[in-house]
Amino acid sequence: MPRVSQNQLDARRRQILAGARACFARHGYEGATVRRLEEETGLSRGAIFHHFRDKESLFLAVAEDDAATMVATVAENGLVQVMRDLLAHAEEPDQAGWLGTQLEVSRRLRTDPAFANRWAARAEAIATATRDRLSRQRDAGVLRADVPVTALAQFLELAYDGLVLHLAMGRPAKDLGSVLDLVEGAVRR
Amino acid sequence: MPRVSQNQLDARRRQILAGARACFARHGYEGATVRRLEEETGLSRGAIFHHFRDKESLFLAVAEDDAATMVATVAENGLVQVMRDLLAHAEEPDQAGWLGTQLEVSRRLRTDPAFANRWAARAEAIATATRDRLSRQRDAGVLRADVPVTALAQFLELAYDGLVLHLAMGRPAKDLGSVLDLVEGAVRR
Repeated sequence: MPRVSQNQLDARRRQILAGARACFARHGYEGATVRRLEEETGLSRGAIFHHFRDKESLFLAVAEDDAATMVATVAENGLVQVMRDLLAHAEEPDQAGWLGTQLEVSRRLRTDPAFANRWAARAEAIATATRDRLSRQRDAGVLRADVPVTALAQFLELAYDGLVLHLAMGRPAKDLGSVLDLVEGAVRR
Repeated sequence: MPRVSQNQLDARRRQILAGARACFARHGYEGATVRRLEEETGLSRGAIFHHFRDKESLFLAVAEDDAATMVATVAENGLVQVMRDLLAHAEEPDQAGWLGTQLEVSRRLRTDPAFANRWAARAEAIATATRDRLSRQRDAGVLRADVPVTALAQFLELAYDGLVLHLAMGRPAKDLGSVLDLVEGAVRR
């Protein structure tokens, strides 16, 4: 039996995550059946669930993948840049679908504490990166100093959530650039 | 056969809307079956669907009821006050559920143009009221003058959407008062 290298395992994992993201975007959480996940990833259910315990774990892994990218962007360029990136890709066919899938799970977040805990870890990583970045910005004298950093961070998260809901509902993205300028201006000195 | 007065018809309609709102909040759009709608309203399916064509019409009527209240509050006190009212009632058991139900329909808004049109009429009434109120505020010299009213209105709508998503996902409402102060400050002179 040939040994599978770590590189091959990582590539397979990325292949599954990309297919799963497209599948959730097109069919929603409930609609992403195992058969559809097989079609979108081009892999058998055995191969998929060798890497991920179940559909919930796969869904959370796609969301955690987003969160890791977001944390890196927030650390370097801030949460407003994450929002500008979302806007820049608003026309891509699967983006609104994937955001929408995240909304669909809102009931589960309220009623399933185990699921809510796994989701919260992801949100907390983004919140921490946002606060850290804002603290550095304040030290650099770029931010307004009359409002606690925690409140500024929550304000930016509220705007981010608003953008997610706006795009997930398929509303137009044009004109929102100047709205993000307002968001950014509200936290600056 | 006794004649049914307009008052009685209106009261019956309100009874159905209140029960339907609770039913959607608890069970979601798909989970709000006709049987559950009968239980929550205390009325037969015949009585319910004498007033509303189908479940979709009932759902949109509950949302339009909200929109009418919102338009009145926006006209008098602005969209920030609508957000403060949402926060004030965040602990009520059915509020997050009803907001969550509105998120669940995001896929339908993207994929069902007829449904999206009926929803958009509601959103447009709120947007118009928001712009009108902001124009009056600008004339009164309360608002910043360096940004078009349309951009200020979209900024407030983005914050409102963010609050809806935040509360619908069951995240904590405390501390958001000072975030709304930031939102309000960002549009003022």
